[in-house]
Amino acid sequence: MSSLKSFVHVKNPYLDSMDEDVLYHLDLGTKTHNLPEMFGDVKFVCVGGSPNRMKAFALFMHKELRLEDGEEDIKDICAGTDRYCMYKIGPVLSISHGMGIPSISIMLHELIKLLYHARCSDVTIIRIGTSGGIGIAPGSVVITDEAVDSFFKPRFEQVILDNIVTRSTELDKELAEELFNCSKEISNFPTLIGHTMCTYDFYEGQGRLDGALCSFSREKGLDYLKRAYNAGVRNIEMESTVFAAMCRLCGLKAAVVCVTLLNRLECDQINSPHDVLVEYQKRPQLLISKFIKQRLGLRDQTS
Amino acid sequence: MSSLKSFVHVKNPYLDSMDEDVLYHLDLGTKTHNLPEMFGDVKFVCVGGSPNRMKAFALFMHKELRLEDGEEDIKDICAGTDRYCMYKIGPVLSISHGMGIPSISIMLHELIKLLYHARCSDVTIIRIGTSGGIGIAPGSVVITDEAVDSFFKPRFEQVILDNIVTRSTELDKELAEELFNCSKEISNFPTLIGHTMCTYDFYEGQGRLDGALCSFSREKGLDYLKRAYNAGVRNIEMESTVFAAMCRLCGLKAAVVCVTLLNRLECDQINSPHDVLVEYQKRPQLLISKFIKQRLGLRDQTS
Repeated sequence: MSSLKSFVHVKNPYLDSMDEDVLYHLDLGTKTHNLPEMFGDVKFVCVGGSPNRMKAFALFMHKELRLEDGEEDIKDICAGTDRYCMYKIGPVLSISHGMGIPSISIMLHELIKLLYHARCSDVTIIRIGTSGGIGIAPGSVVITDEAVDSFFKPRFEQVILDNIVTRSTELDKELAEELFNCSKEISNFPTLIGHTMCTYDFYEGQGRLDGALCSFSREKGLDYLKRAYNAGVRNIEMESTVFAAMCRLCGLKAAVVCVTLLNRLECDQINSPHDVLVEYQKRPQLLISKFIKQRLGLRDQTS
Repeated sequence: MSSLKSFVHVKNPYLDSMDEDVLYHLDLGTKTHNLPEMFGDVKFVCVGGSPNRMKAFALFMHKELRLEDGEEDIKDICAGTDRYCMYKIGPVLSISHGMGIPSISIMLHELIKLLYHARCSDVTIIRIGTSGGIGIAPGSVVITDEAVDSFFKPRFEQVILDNIVTRSTELDKELAEELFNCSKEISNFPTLIGHTMCTYDFYEGQGRLDGALCSFSREKGLDYLKRAYNAGVRNIEMESTVFAAMCRLCGLKAAVVCVTLLNRLECDQINSPHDVLVEYQKRPQLLISKFIKQRLGLRDQTS
């Protein structure tokens, strides 16, 4: 790592002139909280859709980092709101973002402002999520090299007022490689690097035949998924494009690591036994924990 | 009401041939739950973004409907998942949907299938939410006559595979009128009927100058909001277009009732005192409770 610090930045000329910045959906603010004191040492931010999963990750990281404070000290920093939850474990922040592009985008605006106000530097951010796989075994972990939209293009179309602006969804290549190398050290841990497709819904937009609405044939749906596979897509989720675009613009090195819960070339419904799904969902957490411990120079006792 | 029942329907020729339908994000299913028995009597469905708010609404309705079962019987039906929460109070279902079009769309697909499997008929569905007002006093309640997109058009663009299909966002006019008449019976209850604009994000898409990213001038942002006002828009939120489009296609009479937390012609940040915001958020609940009691022929004891 270079000796020059890379600070998290905003791209908004108005922000510094504001007397106060209320991060409404996080229930935090520049006047009500000492953000540099609370968050200045954050180096890793992990985000995921489900609040329970992000709490579980926080408890897991607490154990793995062997911090001195007790588990009971891990409290939801955003407890004043039910929009998102947030936990801090040493240099690691674990935050939920709900489902879909709009939900994660609100969280990212406020998170990036938080990191900026707190004067955080050299921050790595990783989305750990669940997804539908294409042509790979359920339980596989996909590290995203490129987040693409429904048309298999590596772009995010942001509506700004009534204009559409296209943004790059490039992710950090070195970080993806580092994570992939990490995965090799875990036994029985099927991992691959591939494109991740990000859609605006779970049913019609992902070619599912089991929604309340379905206007295409089984053949058309399967053909779409196969075309996605041929374009390099290995999994489908609902947040990666805006995540990649916003982090890139604000100086955050970003990665997307999702486990696949099913193979969409074989089925639409997620109906594996509960305990199997629970084990799958722990896989990205295990990989990220290993990665963070390596970065921090801690010896790994779990492998 | 006519004597012919209007059943909730799906528009999916594949659904009836499925051996089992797992409503994954609700943690319910046709084989694991007796949906007709659990939900067959549902006549009113109320949806809103925040889980806590929808629980509060359930407790409020329980008091208002003076049902015989105790408050302790009001349990989260979707407790097995943290994606959404759901409460049933007699014929009323109260469900959270998170923030944004993708999040509410997943919930609606599974809710509509639930109502279909349960053979529900003559169901009225109302979104009770929060929003930003345009040119109206904070605390005003807006009943939506038309849900419009960022270009002020009454349409929802659904991506199906890699095609874009445009759907109508027409809401039930009689229901909006009925709700408006209801509002007149509550004292000090500023209510109006107007267009509601639905955006894909809270910051750049709504002309806010206080996000992590802002690439337009104060003047451009204000000009956009004024153009929205001139097009008939009185409030902005993030779910109404897909809500209107999906409910319309599946035979649900739908309305959107949102309170405004601020006047966007005056500011971007939501920084009213907590107790003021809490009181505002109760207003749509109060109106819908009054409406449901009227429909059920119960005497109103609160007015």
